[in-house]
Amino acid sequence: MAGRCWAVLACVGLGLGLGLLIGTGTCSRYEPTWESLDSRPLPDWYDQAKFGIFIHWGVFSVPSFGSEWFWYYLRHQRAQPYVDFMKANYPPGFTYQDFAPQFTAEFFNARRWVEVLAASGAQYAVLTTKHHEGFTLWGSETSWNWNAVDVGPKRDLVGELADALRSHSHLRLGLYHSLFEWFNPLYEQDAANAFKTNHFPTAKTLPELYDIVTKYRPDVVWSDGDGNAPDPYWNSTGFLAWLYNDSPVRDTVVTNDRWGRGCMCKHGGFYTCTDRFVPGHLLPRKWENCMTIDRYSWGYRRNAQLSDYLTIQDLISTLVRTVALGGNLLMNIGPTHDGVIAPIFEERLRQVGSWLAVNGEAIYNSTYWRAQNDSLTPHVWYTFGPRQKAVYAMLLDWPKDGVVVLGEPVLAAPGGTQVELLHYGPLKWDPVKPSGLQVHLPPLAFNQMPCQWAWTLKLTGVA
Amino acid sequence: MAGRCWAVLACVGLGLGLGLLIGTGTCSRYEPTWESLDSRPLPDWYDQAKFGIFIHWGVFSVPSFGSEWFWYYLRHQRAQPYVDFMKANYPPGFTYQDFAPQFTAEFFNARRWVEVLAASGAQYAVLTTKHHEGFTLWGSETSWNWNAVDVGPKRDLVGELADALRSHSHLRLGLYHSLFEWFNPLYEQDAANAFKTNHFPTAKTLPELYDIVTKYRPDVVWSDGDGNAPDPYWNSTGFLAWLYNDSPVRDTVVTNDRWGRGCMCKHGGFYTCTDRFVPGHLLPRKWENCMTIDRYSWGYRRNAQLSDYLTIQDLISTLVRTVALGGNLLMNIGPTHDGVIAPIFEERLRQVGSWLAVNGEAIYNSTYWRAQNDSLTPHVWYTFGPRQKAVYAMLLDWPKDGVVVLGEPVLAAPGGTQVELLHYGPLKWDPVKPSGLQVHLPPLAFNQMPCQWAWTLKLTGVA
Amino acid sequence: MAGRCWAVLACVGLGLGLGLLIGTGTCSRYEPTWESLDSRPLPDWYDQAKFGIFIHWGVFSVPSFGSEWFWYYLRHQRAQPYVDFMKANYPPGFTYQDFAPQFTAEFFNARRWVEVLAASGAQYAVLTTKHHEGFTLWGSETSWNWNAVDVGPKRDLVGELADALRSHSHLRLGLYHSLFEWFNPLYEQDAANAFKTNHFPTAKTLPELYDIVTKYRPDVVWSDGDGNAPDPYWNSTGFLAWLYNDSPVRDTVVTNDRWGRGCMCKHGGFYTCTDRFVPGHLLPRKWENCMTIDRYSWGYRRNAQLSDYLTIQDLISTLVRTVALGGNLLMNIGPTHDGVIAPIFEERLRQVGSWLAVNGEAIYNSTYWRAQNDSLTPHVWYTFGPRQKAVYAMLLDWPKDGVVVLGEPVLAAPGGTQVELLHYGPLKWDPVKPSGLQVHLPPLAFNQMPCQWAWTLKLTGVA
Amino acid sequence: MAGRCWAVLACVGLGLGLGLLIGTGTCSRYEPTWESLDSRPLPDWYDQAKFGIFIHWGVFSVPSFGSEWFWYYLRHQRAQPYVDFMKANYPPGFTYQDFAPQFTAEFFNARRWVEVLAASGAQYAVLTTKHHEGFTLWGSETSWNWNAVDVGPKRDLVGELADALRSHSHLRLGLYHSLFEWFNPLYEQDAANAFKTNHFPTAKTLPELYDIVTKYRPDVVWSDGDGNAPDPYWNSTGFLAWLYNDSPVRDTVVTNDRWGRGCMCKHGGFYTCTDRFVPGHLLPRKWENCMTIDRYSWGYRRNAQLSDYLTIQDLISTLVRTVALGGNLLMNIGPTHDGVIAPIFEERLRQVGSWLAVNGEAIYNSTYWRAQNDSLTPHVWYTFGPRQKAVYAMLLDWPKDGVVVLGEPVLAAPGGTQVELLHYGPLKWDPVKPSGLQVHLPPLAFNQMPCQWAWTLKLTGVA
Repeated sequence: MAGRCWAVLACVGLGLGLGLLIGTGTCSRYEPTWESLDSRPLPDWYDQAKFGIFIHWGVFSVPSFGSEWFWYYLRHQRAQPYVDFMKANYPPGFTYQDFAPQFTAEFFNARRWVEVLAASGAQYAVLTTKHHEGFTLWGSETSWNWNAVDVGPKRDLVGELADALRSHSHLRLGLYHSLFEWFNPLYEQDAANAFKTNHFPTAKTLPELYDIVTKYRPDVVWSDGDGNAPDPYWNSTGFLAWLYNDSPVRDTVVTNDRWGRGCMCKHGGFYTCTDRFVPGHLLPRKWENCMTIDRYSWGYRRNAQLSDYLTIQDLISTLVRTVALGGNLLMNIGPTHDGVIAPIFEERLRQVGSWLAVNGEAIYNSTYWRAQNDSLTPHVWYTFGPRQKAVYAMLLDWPKDGVVVLGEPVLAAPGGTQVELLHYGPLKWDPVKPSGLQVHLPPLAFNQMPCQWAWTLKLTGVA
Repeated sequence: MAGRCWAVLACVGLGLGLGLLIGTGTCSRYEPTWESLDSRPLPDWYDQAKFGIFIHWGVFSVPSFGSEWFWYYLRHQRAQPYVDFMKANYPPGFTYQDFAPQFTAEFFNARRWVEVLAASGAQYAVLTTKHHEGFTLWGSETSWNWNAVDVGPKRDLVGELADALRSHSHLRLGLYHSLFEWFNPLYEQDAANAFKTNHFPTAKTLPELYDIVTKYRPDVVWSDGDGNAPDPYWNSTGFLAWLYNDSPVRDTVVTNDRWGRGCMCKHGGFYTCTDRFVPGHLLPRKWENCMTIDRYSWGYRRNAQLSDYLTIQDLISTLVRTVALGGNLLMNIGPTHDGVIAPIFEERLRQVGSWLAVNGEAIYNSTYWRAQNDSLTPHVWYTFGPRQKAVYAMLLDWPKDGVVVLGEPVLAAPGGTQVELLHYGPLKWDPVKPSGLQVHLPPLAFNQMPCQWAWTLKLTGVA
Repeated sequence: MAGRCWAVLACVGLGLGLGLLIGTGTCSRYEPTWESLDSRPLPDWYDQAKFGIFIHWGVFSVPSFGSEWFWYYLRHQRAQPYVDFMKANYPPGFTYQDFAPQFTAEFFNARRWVEVLAASGAQYAVLTTKHHEGFTLWGSETSWNWNAVDVGPKRDLVGELADALRSHSHLRLGLYHSLFEWFNPLYEQDAANAFKTNHFPTAKTLPELYDIVTKYRPDVVWSDGDGNAPDPYWNSTGFLAWLYNDSPVRDTVVTNDRWGRGCMCKHGGFYTCTDRFVPGHLLPRKWENCMTIDRYSWGYRRNAQLSDYLTIQDLISTLVRTVALGGNLLMNIGPTHDGVIAPIFEERLRQVGSWLAVNGEAIYNSTYWRAQNDSLTPHVWYTFGPRQKAVYAMLLDWPKDGVVVLGEPVLAAPGGTQVELLHYGPLKWDPVKPSGLQVHLPPLAFNQMPCQWAWTLKLTGVA
Repeated sequence: MAGRCWAVLACVGLGLGLGLLIGTGTCSRYEPTWESLDSRPLPDWYDQAKFGIFIHWGVFSVPSFGSEWFWYYLRHQRAQPYVDFMKANYPPGFTYQDFAPQFTAEFFNARRWVEVLAASGAQYAVLTTKHHEGFTLWGSETSWNWNAVDVGPKRDLVGELADALRSHSHLRLGLYHSLFEWFNPLYEQDAANAFKTNHFPTAKTLPELYDIVTKYRPDVVWSDGDGNAPDPYWNSTGFLAWLYNDSPVRDTVVTNDRWGRGCMCKHGGFYTCTDRFVPGHLLPRKWENCMTIDRYSWGYRRNAQLSDYLTIQDLISTLVRTVALGGNLLMNIGPTHDGVIAPIFEERLRQVGSWLAVNGEAIYNSTYWRAQNDSLTPHVWYTFGPRQKAVYAMLLDWPKDGVVVLGEPVLAAPGGTQVELLHYGPLKWDPVKPSGLQVHLPPLAFNQMPCQWAWTLKLTGVA
């Protein structure tokens, strides 16, 4: 309820955009200006969640070749691999739109997906309700015959996933939505007018944004694709003011920063800045690192090889560093055109989940600490647990000699500092000069290790 | 140029909706009211043309089963034959939209079509640019991915036919356009609001109407499908005022009467009243009889039998009666999904053409006469040729005894009346009492007949 | 029963290949030699039937482009139109075999076909059970997964038509069967061995021939496609000896002359010689003129134009000339891939039927006459009715002056000769010098003519 | 060269089945009897290889649902899940054969496959050239239009893999081949005749067996599918006599025991007995355990979940036990219809390969030992290295206390016994009473372990 007026009824009675505010400085409505919108505190749940799963699914899952930007590379760039792929496998004149009927989703079982998502330890999942191709995974009334209810699956994919998440997990629902659409003629018209007309946002983008928020009540609205148009064209501030003031999710929803050319890393909710963003330092605002398990694509690729998938070591390392630096991690999977989360993705998710089952204490509800990683042993990354009043040092490597030197922690008075290996127990340690401590890891056999890929020391009585 | 200001430059110079009209009462603009619009004289060419070809082509040409209302019968009516057809031949979940990619038009050759159309003797051709299914045969920007450029043919079918008609024939171009679309969600929304909102006309119907008129400059705008909504919902008068005042075809264009619930047979250009309309008498306004060669469908039906097609006798008879009663005939063919005018249609069209080559004098540029058919020999139908100052009596039957009695003509002074069989020569005749004449047809052998299916007597010096 | 032993029971009792023949020189079995086989009299029904319908249907009906030799032109000849057609409309690597699943036959209704066939006046129908493509229209056990039961229609098309012909018409069943198959590897192997091996006839051709005769009991076995191999390779004489001696149709079956390289016009049953064969004179043996309504193809062509179809005048003329010259006419239609006899074909068939309803007396059960056409009026063709003891003179043209001169008939004693116009009545005539007569046709109005396209004079008391 | 005559030329000159053998008892030819054929020594390479990869690929890879027995379950058993799957996703009448055109293999790259196969440490790969469906992965001349060259991939899949294996790896080629075909009418005919006719083996099975051996020169002929017919029906002994005496691979080829009803586990080459065969003890003859990574299917299943795949622990354990018991392991993967080895399979294969890179010394070229597993520590399995004169004890578990007791080895004279952990070095050990030894495993940190899933102690100086 951060930032919301306790006197809601009074405020609502005052209508939109106006306010004779009585008696409380917090009982205010957001104005459709960045100054006002940017002042909204991020609802707490988001920073506490730390880890979400991104799901890229759409017509691009049918060719499932190259990338989810297939259409753009084929039609706009005329990139050779895409042109060749089409030539080799389809009749002349076969276009991207012709893939839509093959987006069949016959094996899509939202409960099964939710079971896998939950097993990853993620706290939220973000689905592409509409990527730049413009194909909506729900039956959008302004995307007639170019949506998943009219064509292809003939199902409300967004609704099915939303319902299953709510009924069968604690995960929160996030909805990805692309502002622009590569080849929508209305958008192209506006673009040709240097965005002085805004037929497209009026007829398409905004109705759809309102529609998905109202229908599916997401806790994340993950905007993308400004199409090189400034935010006034998109009327982003108008939409966000409604989202924050009047939408059914006004108390819990978070958004990102992709609301128009120049907004990224500057305005909105959490920052995303670029894809696969991991800054080298803390940021003044909450941020998220969205990245992919398949290192080359967000959408499924049928011909991906094992080496194209990040290893679990890579993924745990990314999770650890991201959280230590104050970010959330949004890890992407690309389901198949027939609705399956491929076993290799399932394996990675379950591996992360098994790690979080052991080390979650250092991740969930943590905050960044004074130091992000250790100055003497740089592969050790820190978080801080406010409730536990503990510093968590996560080791990406297990030292061969069994000794870890931590230069950052400042010891409490003698006897006041304790060190524990999560899921094992207290460890011995010695102070080191000029400051810090060295921890003696136990000589654990292979199958006695708390986990396989990164280990957490919990330090209490340090500062 | 009927009804147009002779001082066009002056008027145009005055801009839209404004006018300092000087010196001429005819230099006026039409108001967007029925009173004003209905006062516009019909451009002359239309009544003179008499005979046009209607072409129903669209996604319905793919199943080509039952009728062009396939989608409606299947989805809204759940009519058994359609439901059964889908069940028997397609996978569960296969919908009408899935037919679109199979609308291939690979054999569509507009020049070839025009050659056939011209051979029929028709003076104009009307193509369904968009039927109630909403699929546009041109690349409409407001029908993204539900049009023939994005899906199926990947061609501008309207443009190709328009160009071929202009370059290779004297036929005028007509464009059929459905106001409503059965299942367009925007339309359904408005309908649910009892047409108090008009999202659909604003976003779809009107932009498309302006688009096709501007792009293809049709001489006929053949509106259809009011969707049970009154014309203010469609803003029909607004569009027509633009069409008559400012469109590039303002001087030549004709329209029909299907512009909103209650308009039919009442407002607009020529009357169509109902499909296959043949009134028993003259109407106060020019009208058109649109009918089909396949008696059961406007769209192509793959499983039609020979007996489903009207015979050439039927067709000539319909043409004769329609023109005698003051109407135009718009005879429909349904091309195949791959772009072919089936030989049976081609045969009927060429047969009509061969008849018109002999009897066209009685049809083209004619007007209705004092009597429409003869009181004594009812299967004889009359027209009048203003230029020839001749009455044309068309015989649907050839009398076995070689004698035709015509009760309606009033003879001129003796010697002043002449009777001729078109493409044969003068005939003998006698006056009959109390009035009229009996004509002695020559004993022509089979292969000496001017034509095979209806014969024209040209009478001069009668009243 | 011509040529069969009257003591059938005795013969059958003697078993195969052996014979103690008692008391009758005709109770003999045919030897597998041309000398013996050629001596078999043709069962009477065939010459009496005069008119049959040929039906070309197969996988070629799917592309329905160019001709039923599509595969050969594409793959062997690499003919440009076929190569281009494939390139333009199908993905690379799409082959002829890939058309088979699209041979759907969903509208195929054998009763409906039979109704149309019967309406043509034909007395037999010959279906391509297997064309050179090798695809069998019945579930051949030696053509696994390349037959209509396994692939495409999933129906026994031969069986359905055979049953319907028997149950709902008097038409006899004929089965076309191609000996060779263009691309069957077993055939190719034998061909590479200069036909010194005969794997293919043993494994494929002969089992299939025996199979269709036994299963469907045809009255015509219409062989084709010797693949440039001599008849010993095919063991044609062996098969024919079985067909004539022991098959269930031994008493009624007729065959043609396409049983191996060099057989045509020389051995077997009736002669076919070449496609569209019309000799200028009588032949020493019964023959058949197989020809097509579509002048360019036996298989259906989707893009055929009206002018590609023979007119009814052409067809009647061909029928008249063929029968006058002692032949039978086998007129071909090509149904569509979905099982429809296109209306243009239906129209031609019904037109022939309407003509035969009037003039059949001059065709069915007739024989050729002394003269085939008239020496003075060459467009008049003759047949002779043995039962009626009448000469039939068929006029392809109706004379403008109403007078036909017939130079061939020799008049009987005065009063003994009569002339009648079929479906009208007796006509006046005068003898002419040095011989013959001139007939005065009545001045019939258009709609009093017995028929529209050729008229028959029945002459009795002439020689 | 075991069992082969050194005087090959002499023998060959003597022809088939006959022999005036001069000068050497070993220069003999195999008779087509089990007695003779079973006497052939297995070529050495096979027992030394230990580990191969089985590849099930075919039309069943298109539905990739349920199992590679899809067709049988659907058509013969009418098993509900298969019937429902077809009903839900395909039109009525869609049959298994209709899947063939969708077997596209567009991503099939034999070199890429070989790279993955080689990385697994396997020494041979066995491809289904033809499963019970009868579809051949090469262009079989007796399987016209039901093979991968005519339909689907339009490529010689067997040839491509064979070439790539030879050119780019040391793996030997094995060819799986099914004797019977579920629904081949010729087979069904023979079966209906209680296998007293043998049209099917003559026309299909035998020509194909000879064809693949001659064309692709496999080192394994992996027969399967006796169709409940005894081996004389299949003429298996005739084929094997040719294979062993005269085929191009007579010196190296191995076969299995599936050559007719009653042969399994009794005649032929190595035993396979049942699928997933792991006997509890040594067998009198070399055997092979063919098993699947996907525990439910040999063919690919699109909707398989992670838990359906055996873990790497399962797989290593199976490999260890199989080899210790004297068997070879043939581990199956199922590629996708588009030609991809899914990443989860690739991962498992590479994991096995990484294990063999460390422990291969205990597997390749080993033999079974006196004891197969340890009596005191049963999860320890033994092999023997003849060249190294070492006993290998493979530990499936790593003991928490670091001590392994081995009861089976009999120690040499003091100082003569040594124990080594492969890829680590010598270990300390103590003798135990009454016999055996206990080995002290080193306290290795996680990342110092030689491998992750089973560890090998190499014992020298034991008996």
